[in-house]
Amino acid sequence: MTRTIRARPLDGAAFAPFGEVLETAGPPDRMVNAGRAGRWHDRADLDFGPGGRAGISIFRAESCSLPYRFDLLERHPDGSQAFLPLSSAPFLVIVAPDEGGRPGAPLAFCTAPGQGVNLRRGVWHGVLTPLAPPGLFAVVDRIGPGANLEEHRLAETLTVSA
Amino acid sequence: MTRTIRARPLDGAAFAPFGEVLETAGPPDRMVNAGRAGRWHDRADLDFGPGGRAGISIFRAESCSLPYRFDLLERHPDGSQAFLPLSSAPFLVIVAPDEGGRPGAPLAFCTAPGQGVNLRRGVWHGVLTPLAPPGLFAVVDRIGPGANLEEHRLAETLTVSA
Repeated sequence: MTRTIRARPLDGAAFAPFGEVLETAGPPDRMVNAGRAGRWHDRADLDFGPGGRAGISIFRAESCSLPYRFDLLERHPDGSQAFLPLSSAPFLVIVAPDEGGRPGAPLAFCTAPGQGVNLRRGVWHGVLTPLAPPGLFAVVDRIGPGANLEEHRLAETLTVSA
Repeated sequence: MTRTIRARPLDGAAFAPFGEVLETAGPPDRMVNAGRAGRWHDRADLDFGPGGRAGISIFRAESCSLPYRFDLLERHPDGSQAFLPLSSAPFLVIVAPDEGGRPGAPLAFCTAPGQGVNLRRGVWHGVLTPLAPPGLFAVVDRIGPGANLEEHRLAETLTVSA
């Protein structure tokens, strides 16, 4: 028997304990480009710690489908990590609260087109799980010394359902 | 009579004088996520100057079509600016070399799906010009004091053709 969690639509309020949803929610903070574009300004709480700096990397990940089974979570103790999809395809965002240095009960969110996320430093999360090709993401995270990675294998496999 | 420039496919070598093309060119620098994803590592030459820091903002811009006419270029003297499309739709990237504090002859590039760009600090460029909806971009640029904007109106309107 495996425990099942349901993927809920990604929503800034529900996601707030883990980081920020990066999207055009509400009116733009300002208009730019001679009025042709809106800017939702500085929406991620970036944190690269002492000795780190911001970098942009590109990820290409294998797609998955629901129901999706997983038993691996990871976290980056030294910096935040933002995932910006380079397509309109949805992706799963699996996160978990920390409970004494180990992940507590995971939650799963499914993005809408135009949504990215920024994970706060140290937030437990699943691997990149696009729900359709091309699986391309720009990732804004910490460049600096150290491994900046902790992995945790769950005692039981969990299933994310639609 | 207006001068016409042709949009060429965006290519890292041709774009190098202006910044970096952010894409999955060549093999990944490393595999992550238990082998499920490739990482093209730290591909942008980010530069936020003294007194600045990295931020992620979301832009939504009106779409345009070819032939596209323009007479406005701008640049950001205090920091680099990366444009990461949140869709697979192509966009135009118009840039110009600097000639004594004014833009020289502009060039136009058309992106392929999965391509973003990072503009070096101070590079003259056109406004955001997605070639199809939704016109959504994540923008990684400098957050800090100062206007960080110079605009230049061209003496003649230019046309970008396919």
